[in-house]
Amino acid sequence: MRAEIIAVGSELLLGQILNSNAKFISLRLAEIGIDVNYHTVVGDNPKRLEEVITIAKGRADVLIFTGGLGPTKDDLTKETIAKQIGTVLVSDDTALRYIHEHFERSGRTMTENNKKQALVFQGAQVLANHTGMAPGMAVENEGTHYLLLPGPPHEMEPMFTKEATPYLFSVLGKKELIKSRVLKFYGIGEAELEFRIQDLLEKQTNPTIAPLASKSAVTLRITAKALSEIEANLLIDAVEKEIRSIVGEFIYGIDEDTLSSKAAELLGESNLTLAAAESLTAGMFMAELADEPGISSSLSGGVVVYNNDMKVKQLGIEESLLTKYGVVSSECAAALAVSVMKKFGTDVGIGITGAAGPDPHDGKAVGTVWIGIVALGEAPKTYKLSLSGLRNTNRLRASQFTLYYLIQFLKDKKAQN
Amino acid sequence: MRAEIIAVGSELLLGQILNSNAKFISLRLAEIGIDVNYHTVVGDNPKRLEEVITIAKGRADVLIFTGGLGPTKDDLTKETIAKQIGTVLVSDDTALRYIHEHFERSGRTMTENNKKQALVFQGAQVLANHTGMAPGMAVENEGTHYLLLPGPPHEMEPMFTKEATPYLFSVLGKKELIKSRVLKFYGIGEAELEFRIQDLLEKQTNPTIAPLASKSAVTLRITAKALSEIEANLLIDAVEKEIRSIVGEFIYGIDEDTLSSKAAELLGESNLTLAAAESLTAGMFMAELADEPGISSSLSGGVVVYNNDMKVKQLGIEESLLTKYGVVSSECAAALAVSVMKKFGTDVGIGITGAAGPDPHDGKAVGTVWIGIVALGEAPKTYKLSLSGLRNTNRLRASQFTLYYLIQFLKDKKAQN
Repeated sequence: MRAEIIAVGSELLLGQILNSNAKFISLRLAEIGIDVNYHTVVGDNPKRLEEVITIAKGRADVLIFTGGLGPTKDDLTKETIAKQIGTVLVSDDTALRYIHEHFERSGRTMTENNKKQALVFQGAQVLANHTGMAPGMAVENEGTHYLLLPGPPHEMEPMFTKEATPYLFSVLGKKELIKSRVLKFYGIGEAELEFRIQDLLEKQTNPTIAPLASKSAVTLRITAKALSEIEANLLIDAVEKEIRSIVGEFIYGIDEDTLSSKAAELLGESNLTLAAAESLTAGMFMAELADEPGISSSLSGGVVVYNNDMKVKQLGIEESLLTKYGVVSSECAAALAVSVMKKFGTDVGIGITGAAGPDPHDGKAVGTVWIGIVALGEAPKTYKLSLSGLRNTNRLRASQFTLYYLIQFLKDKKAQN
Repeated sequence: MRAEIIAVGSELLLGQILNSNAKFISLRLAEIGIDVNYHTVVGDNPKRLEEVITIAKGRADVLIFTGGLGPTKDDLTKETIAKQIGTVLVSDDTALRYIHEHFERSGRTMTENNKKQALVFQGAQVLANHTGMAPGMAVENEGTHYLLLPGPPHEMEPMFTKEATPYLFSVLGKKELIKSRVLKFYGIGEAELEFRIQDLLEKQTNPTIAPLASKSAVTLRITAKALSEIEANLLIDAVEKEIRSIVGEFIYGIDEDTLSSKAAELLGESNLTLAAAESLTAGMFMAELADEPGISSSLSGGVVVYNNDMKVKQLGIEESLLTKYGVVSSECAAALAVSVMKKFGTDVGIGITGAAGPDPHDGKAVGTVWIGIVALGEAPKTYKLSLSGLRNTNRLRASQFTLYYLIQFLKDKKAQN
C-alpha cells in the first residue's frame, strides 16, 4: 500500500510555516507498514489542487490531505475533492453540535461560515476533532482512499493517532490494534545504542523497535500489534525487559517523561529539597528543573558563580583547593555541592564546573566538566564529562547530564530505602 | 515566473527530517518575486524522480532541487536530470580541487566515490559550495531552468543566497543586485507592528519590507534591489530611518543580533559588571546571557531564590517589605536587584520576580512579573509585565523582557555619557 501526503495551504508555499505534518504522518505510516512515496504541497487554489489529486490517485492508494478544512473562503479542500470523486457535502450533526458547544464555552458568537466546518462527504467516516472545530473524514472511491485532516498540528496529530490510524488498519485488513511505548535514553549515543541492541533490532517483527534521535535525546519506540490491549502490553513488556537487561542504566523514563519532569517527580516522591551552584551552565540546570510546576517545594534555589572570584566570595570555596586542583576539578565540583547545600539548608546539593569554550578554562580542555552531587550526611559523588561540542552545546549537555545523574542518584537512594 | 521546489531524499519520506529547505527557499523566492506553486518530496528512486521532473517541467519554469548530490550510490539527482535533459556529466576542476583540499585539511583519505561529487552538467553554471563538498549547478533546457542544490541546510542556504540568487536575477533579466537588512524587534507583537507601519508596508516596492514572526521574536526584513551595493544600502538606510521614527524603541538590533548578544556587547563596551537575583526564571536570564563567549568579564554571577524563604535568608530582603507589598511587587524586584548588586559587588543588579503559573503566586495573577534594574549609586527602575502564556512561556518571556529592558537601560546610559 502506497501513500501520498498532500498539504494544502499557500502559507507553506510562501515559506511562512514548516510542513511538520508531513514528517509526523510519515513517521506513523512507516510504523504501520504503509510506504510513503511522495509529499506534495499545493496552495489554496482549486484548479491546481484538482491537478494534484489527479496525479496522486494515479500513483498512490491512500491520499492523506492536511489543511484547508477551515471556515474561510480560502479553505477549499473538501469542495475540490467532493467534485473530483463525485460526492456531495452534508452537515454532520455531531460535528455541528461540537462547534456550537465550542462557541458557547468561549463566549464568542458563531457566524454562518463556521457551519461550513461541519460539512462532510456523504457516507464518509467522520474523524472526530477533540482539539479543534473542523472534523476530519475518510472515504474510499474507486479503490483510492481519501483521508482529510485539519492543518494545525495540535488538531491533526491526535486525530491521526486516534481516528485515522484505526481507519488505515481496517483498510489494511487488520483486526489488531496498535500500541506504542517510548523508552527515553540519556548518556548513550544513537549509534552505540543500536550497536548494543543490534540482535534485538534485527530479530523483532512484533513488537517492532524503532530508534529515533533528536537534538537532546535518544528514544526507542516499541510498537506492538495485537488483538487486545492486554496482549499488546504483554508483548511490549517482554521487549522492554530485554532492552533494560542490556542498556537499562541509560533509560531515565518512558513516553512523556523528560529529564526535568523525572527529576522533579523523584525529588517530590522522596521529599528532598535541593540547591545548586552553577558555573559554566550559569543557571541553566535550575531553570530546566523549574520547568516543572510545583517544583518550589523541592528547589530552594542556588547560586550562579560564573566569575571565579565568586566561588570563593559567595560560597567560601577555599583558595588553596582551587590552587591545588583547579576550578575545573572533581574537588571543586564536590566543594560547590557541599557549600551550596549548607548555605541553602537543603537535603541535596549540586555543583557544576567546567570549560564550556571557546577557550580552555584554567588549563582544562574545552568540554571538560565536573558535576558534584551530595546528600546531607553523605560523601559527595562526582562525575566527569568530556564533551566535544561548541560552547552552548557543551553547556546544554552539562545541564542535561546533571539532571541525568541526579535521576540515577535519586533512584539509587529510593532503592536503598 | 513559476517555481517548484523538489526535495530528493527517502529520509524525508520516512519522517526522519523536516523539509526546512523548502521553507527557506520559498521565503527567498517570495522576496525576489518568483511564485512558488508546488513543493514536492520524492525518494532516492530514479524512476519516480524522472516522473516528478516530467510533471514539474509541465507546470513550472524554474525547478529547484535539494538533496541527492552526495557521494553514495543513493545520490542520483544529477544522473537522473542529466538523462532527462540529454546532457552529460563532466568533472569540474575547481570543485575537484576543493574536495581534495577538504580531505587534506581534515586528514582523512579521499575515496574514489568522492570524485563523483565534482561531476557537473556540461555547460552548466557551477554554484560554489563554501561550506561543504558537493557543488551546485544551474542550467537551462528547453525553456526550463534547473537548479541543483545540496541537501544539508548549512550548505544549501549560503549557496542559495550567494550563488543561486544572482542566477535567478539574471534569468529574470535583472541587472540589479539584491541586499537585505533584518531589523530585530522585542516587546511588540507582529500585528501591532504591522498596524503601526501599515502605510510604509503598503507603499513600499523597493525596498520591500517583509515582517516575520517566530516564537520568540518579530523581525522586519528590508530588501533592496539596486545597481550597486552603495545604492542598495542608501535605499535600506532611508527605510530603516522611517521605521525607527515610528517604532524605534522596540528595535534592539539588526541581522545576526540576539537579545543576549546585544546585551553582552553593550555590557562589554561600557565595562560594567552585573549580577542577578532570579525567582520565577530560576536562572534562565543568566543562562541566556552566558550564551555569549567572553561574558565572564561582565557577568559575575547571581542567586536563584526560587523558594520564598530564600529571598529573606539569602538576600536579606526584609520580611516587612514582603508582608507589605508581596513577593510579586515593584518593591521586591527593586530590593532583589539592589541586594544582589551589593552582595556580588557589581555595577548593575537585576531582580526578577513573578507568578509563572499554573497557579497564582502570593495573590498575584498568573503572568504578573516585575523586573528591577539598578546601577550603582542610582535609584532602581522597575518594569511590570502582564503575560498571558502558559507557565514556561511566561518564564521565557520574563527572561527575554529582562534582556530587552537591560539593553534599553544600557543604551540610555551610553547616550548619557
